[in-house]
Amino acid sequence: MSGKGFPSGGADHRLQELGIQLPRAPVPFGTYVETVQTGNLLFLSGMLPVVDHKPKYVGRLGKELDIEAGRDAAYTAALGALAAAKEHLGSLDPITRVVRLGVFIATSGDFFDQPRVADGASDLFREVFGSEKMPVRLVIGVASLPLGMPIELEVIFEVAVQQ
Amino acid sequence: MSGKGFPSGGADHRLQELGIQLPRAPVPFGTYVETVQTGNLLFLSGMLPVVDHKPKYVGRLGKELDIEAGRDAAYTAALGALAAAKEHLGSLDPITRVVRLGVFIATSGDFFDQPRVADGASDLFREVFGSEKMPVRLVIGVASLPLGMPIELEVIFEVAVQQ
Amino acid sequence: MSGKGFPSGGADHRLQELGIQLPRAPVPFGTYVETVQTGNLLFLSGMLPVVDHKPKYVGRLGKELDIEAGRDAAYTAALGALAAAKEHLGSLDPITRVVRLGVFIATSGDFFDQPRVADGASDLFREVFGSEKMPVRLVIGVASLPLGMPIELEVIFEVAVQQ
Repeated sequence: MSGKGFPSGGADHRLQELGIQLPRAPVPFGTYVETVQTGNLLFLSGMLPVVDHKPKYVGRLGKELDIEAGRDAAYTAALGALAAAKEHLGSLDPITRVVRLGVFIATSGDFFDQPRVADGASDLFREVFGSEKMPVRLVIGVASLPLGMPIELEVIFEVAVQQ
Repeated sequence: MSGKGFPSGGADHRLQELGIQLPRAPVPFGTYVETVQTGNLLFLSGMLPVVDHKPKYVGRLGKELDIEAGRDAAYTAALGALAAAKEHLGSLDPITRVVRLGVFIATSGDFFDQPRVADGASDLFREVFGSEKMPVRLVIGVASLPLGMPIELEVIFEVAVQQ
Repeated sequence: MSGKGFPSGGADHRLQELGIQLPRAPVPFGTYVETVQTGNLLFLSGMLPVVDHKPKYVGRLGKELDIEAGRDAAYTAALGALAAAKEHLGSLDPITRVVRLGVFIATSGDFFDQPRVADGASDLFREVFGSEKMPVRLVIGVASLPLGMPIELEVIFEVAVQQ
């Protein structure tokens, strides 16, 4: 945790400070694109816990996977969101706000610790962008996600640059 | 039901007419904020049927809870949405439209009366804002929601004031 | 598949070329409206695989319905989205972009071919609008959908006309 609220020097610099190297930007699993900007809003496709287009985790929370695996899956998907935004914008610095974070979690139906799992994504965004730029959040436990993965993130960024 | 379509005197006045006292604005269960405004759009975090940060209902529709409980849970979460918007804006009067209402309902998988449950939230918004300001709606039956609650609302308002 | 990327002559003309006749615009199952435009964004209610307000399909993917039925359900719901947009705008030509497509699929919990099902909607949008206007996409397997239908689409269009 930064304890400062707002990182100095922009999100790209902050990533370096944190020693985080972004993965390659995700590529689609079907007929869609990873990013669409309309006005100042940058919409991202559902971000999954993939590494090199392959699932890092398969399974459901409260069944095949425990909370720590879920938190890391959320963190991995959030890294993908940063990589997708950076590919679109050339840099994370134009991001003025994380507007909205939806966290869809595959569960067996009797798992209720979704907020702790979702914090795996939220905590990364706070580290990189600072607490003044935190999003609203929606956390939902669902039946299944593409390719059996445990987490899918919906992310909307607000950006300073015009299209 | 107002039967007029559009309440006179603004939403704050309409709340008084209806004898509705808003609860305290909800507070986060994790690393996020309850409201983010970008341009004329006010995004809210997932609104849950809580009273004083504690679940008013726990359980699933079609299993532990019946339709009336589901409708009241949706109504309770919608009151929270109004409270969150009022805390952000100082008043409900700048709200020019409810843009979008997502209703996520925890179900056992064989419950199909989601629209009647969702109307518990929609009917409140119609009463307060008038039928000209009604949102689009998305209703989804899901496996589980945070802390075992039966309803989570996604709400986007359009507001007249600039940031 | 068009193979061109961008249809000439606008989306209305492209529909004619494809020999597609839009169904009647969908009507609500509850207290909400089918379309809300705010600025340049056109939000649609959850689009279901209905014909004349009746479900074309009932059941879950991986249980009562196979992938082909799911793809056709997604296609049918996407036609409804086009019909709703056309009713709102008078024409599909003002649509400058499909911004976002959410695909909610009712599954038994062990169905993981969601992307192929979702392509039933995405492929139609690509045919009509061209690949430069494709949306970001979110695909989620859920417990149940209104009236037991297998597919619900969330669609946001970007439009050129002001309100």
